[in-house]
Amino acid sequence: MENFDLLNPTKLVFGRGTIARIGEEILAGGHKKVLLIAGGGSIKKNTVYDQVIASLKDSKIEWTETWGVKPNPVLSKVREMIKEAKESGAEALLAVGGGSVIDSAKAVAVGLYIDDVWQAFEAKKPIEKAMPVYSVLTISATGTEMNQYAVVTNEEEKKKWNIGGPALYPKVSVVDPSVQATLPWNQAVNGALDTMSHIMEYYFMDGEAETALTLNESLLRSIIKMTDKLKLDPNDYDSRANLAWAATLALNGTSGAGQAGGDWACHGIEHAISAINPAVAHGAGLGVVTPAWIEYVQDTNPDIFRRWAENVWGGKDIKDGVVAMREKIKEWGNPTTLAEFNIKESQVEEIASNAVDFGLTGSLKVLTKEDIMEILLLASPEV
Amino acid sequence: MENFDLLNPTKLVFGRGTIARIGEEILAGGHKKVLLIAGGGSIKKNTVYDQVIASLKDSKIEWTETWGVKPNPVLSKVREMIKEAKESGAEALLAVGGGSVIDSAKAVAVGLYIDDVWQAFEAKKPIEKAMPVYSVLTISATGTEMNQYAVVTNEEEKKKWNIGGPALYPKVSVVDPSVQATLPWNQAVNGALDTMSHIMEYYFMDGEAETALTLNESLLRSIIKMTDKLKLDPNDYDSRANLAWAATLALNGTSGAGQAGGDWACHGIEHAISAINPAVAHGAGLGVVTPAWIEYVQDTNPDIFRRWAENVWGGKDIKDGVVAMREKIKEWGNPTTLAEFNIKESQVEEIASNAVDFGLTGSLKVLTKEDIMEILLLASPEV
Repeated sequence: MENFDLLNPTKLVFGRGTIARIGEEILAGGHKKVLLIAGGGSIKKNTVYDQVIASLKDSKIEWTETWGVKPNPVLSKVREMIKEAKESGAEALLAVGGGSVIDSAKAVAVGLYIDDVWQAFEAKKPIEKAMPVYSVLTISATGTEMNQYAVVTNEEEKKKWNIGGPALYPKVSVVDPSVQATLPWNQAVNGALDTMSHIMEYYFMDGEAETALTLNESLLRSIIKMTDKLKLDPNDYDSRANLAWAATLALNGTSGAGQAGGDWACHGIEHAISAINPAVAHGAGLGVVTPAWIEYVQDTNPDIFRRWAENVWGGKDIKDGVVAMREKIKEWGNPTTLAEFNIKESQVEEIASNAVDFGLTGSLKVLTKEDIMEILLLASPEV
Repeated sequence: MENFDLLNPTKLVFGRGTIARIGEEILAGGHKKVLLIAGGGSIKKNTVYDQVIASLKDSKIEWTETWGVKPNPVLSKVREMIKEAKESGAEALLAVGGGSVIDSAKAVAVGLYIDDVWQAFEAKKPIEKAMPVYSVLTISATGTEMNQYAVVTNEEEKKKWNIGGPALYPKVSVVDPSVQATLPWNQAVNGALDTMSHIMEYYFMDGEAETALTLNESLLRSIIKMTDKLKLDPNDYDSRANLAWAATLALNGTSGAGQAGGDWACHGIEHAISAINPAVAHGAGLGVVTPAWIEYVQDTNPDIFRRWAENVWGGKDIKDGVVAMREKIKEWGNPTTLAEFNIKESQVEEIASNAVDFGLTGSLKVLTKEDIMEILLLASPEV
């Protein structure tokens, strides 16, 4: 088992009816004016916006608003919001939305203290200074509500890169799973696949860490079981809540403890895919890449891949696990090949170059550009 | 799934060779002088003391020392150490030892700011003010290294009570599992049983919390597997490390999230037993009480007890789980009856009264004094 440090200063407020508490939490943090950062307007349809505003008013918190963050959030929008944050006189940021909204808020929080925010992405150093970020999460998937990371796409340079550091933990994150009842089915599936990928990025590192391995297997099984249950009844609160809690655990330090930092090649490859085609949802991309990655790297440590096939999918050998995972993704209605994203064979080299350029090319097996091209070809028999 | 808040501000530094970092962590916390609190001297035999002192010297931290904390730590000793802490001019406390040492340090930290420390135990209100506590853990069991609780026995009144509150989280806790290699076997077993009990106190609350349930089952299975492995090879680092990490997870907010605060009747009963007979180790007492409690309360929610029997012990019905748990405890060489603690039938009523007096008498089923007496009789067929 590998050494690790764990310090997670985010306060998580989890459960039904908890959005009403965001105002008092911001007040307790000593802030009287916030910039509310949001996406395309779904929070106005599902009552989240009204609940947030009522809570801000109750606690006499002033606010201004900025809208328009999109999935796979982009640098140009972050730069625009940094200007707005400066002009607003906000003392803290309040992200209301999914992972893209919270990640954008984190990037804004950093950008307020440096010349240009992209410098922080290029520097690849821990972020030590940022404006406090509060969040109300509306889609459980990325785990950003309780971690120190943010991912933004530089659309000019086609780079989907991340930043991380102690200043990026949200002060308080409110997760009310009941508001996720109105999410489209495919977004729930993408969230589940993103969560599963976070867990697997750590899991396959193995390292004689029985507690971490069995804990991560149990999280994977719970996600599969709860997603199946949600398919039968989208209004089942407990399925949403269990998925939401698993998504937070997957990337708040719990899943990864003792797992040597994880592998992250699948994330690197997926980022390269959605940098080139922003219509690819992160979770959907991971669902296509991960089984192909397993097929390609399995010989590096067959024991851990066999254990995964047995304990997560009830299979006998590695192939059973890969087949079961692809079948489950199909059953949930999600793509299992790159062809379904309209990715052409001619783009495979560009994607591989992009992934290598960012540097997240694996730890269990460090992948070359050629390795990544092989994986991309395995991911799409129809290419 | 029940609502919950989660905020754990303790920094956990986990792994081989990490004790060397305690000095720099105290310095980073802004403290230049500490009171080192310790037990009976085992840390001088297993090199922990030397490692701590070397680290303090490296970081130019001044220190004074107070020794003599015993298992089931007592109020009189805490009062004595509060005086010493005042006289020492320490800015923080450094607990070096097991749960008893860390809990004593937490009580000292509280007692420095009130007339008499026992008032805090009687008040049963969250502790908001305490001197910062740092810890170097030498026995994984209670989880106190990363939580807000402390248990102390008022020996005059025979009350083993606890305090809790946000000010009681250690600032930094260092857990180097390699130093636990010299622990006597029965202490390792007691630690495993204490950890298992913490998990089960939450687990049996059920509440449609699939993620919490399967996570807790996986922790229980890992503890059993790693303890079995440790029995074969006491020097196996990975077994120690996996047990240590499970012990921290069991009571740092992870295991209990969504589980409605847990039941805690077994803890209440065990505290009453070791208040009357301080020679009973906490984990050993829990190993005797828990199977009897399950036998007595199983009808309250048979589904969850059956699930436990199946998923943790591979049994078909509840009885299989209870039998398997007792067999495993025997196999590990620990007692399974109160008679083995020399507890007499004449003491059963006194223990039950003491437990009711403290108030931890269950949530899944709220126990009366008579219920507790029945459980105590089930726990000891020979009484």
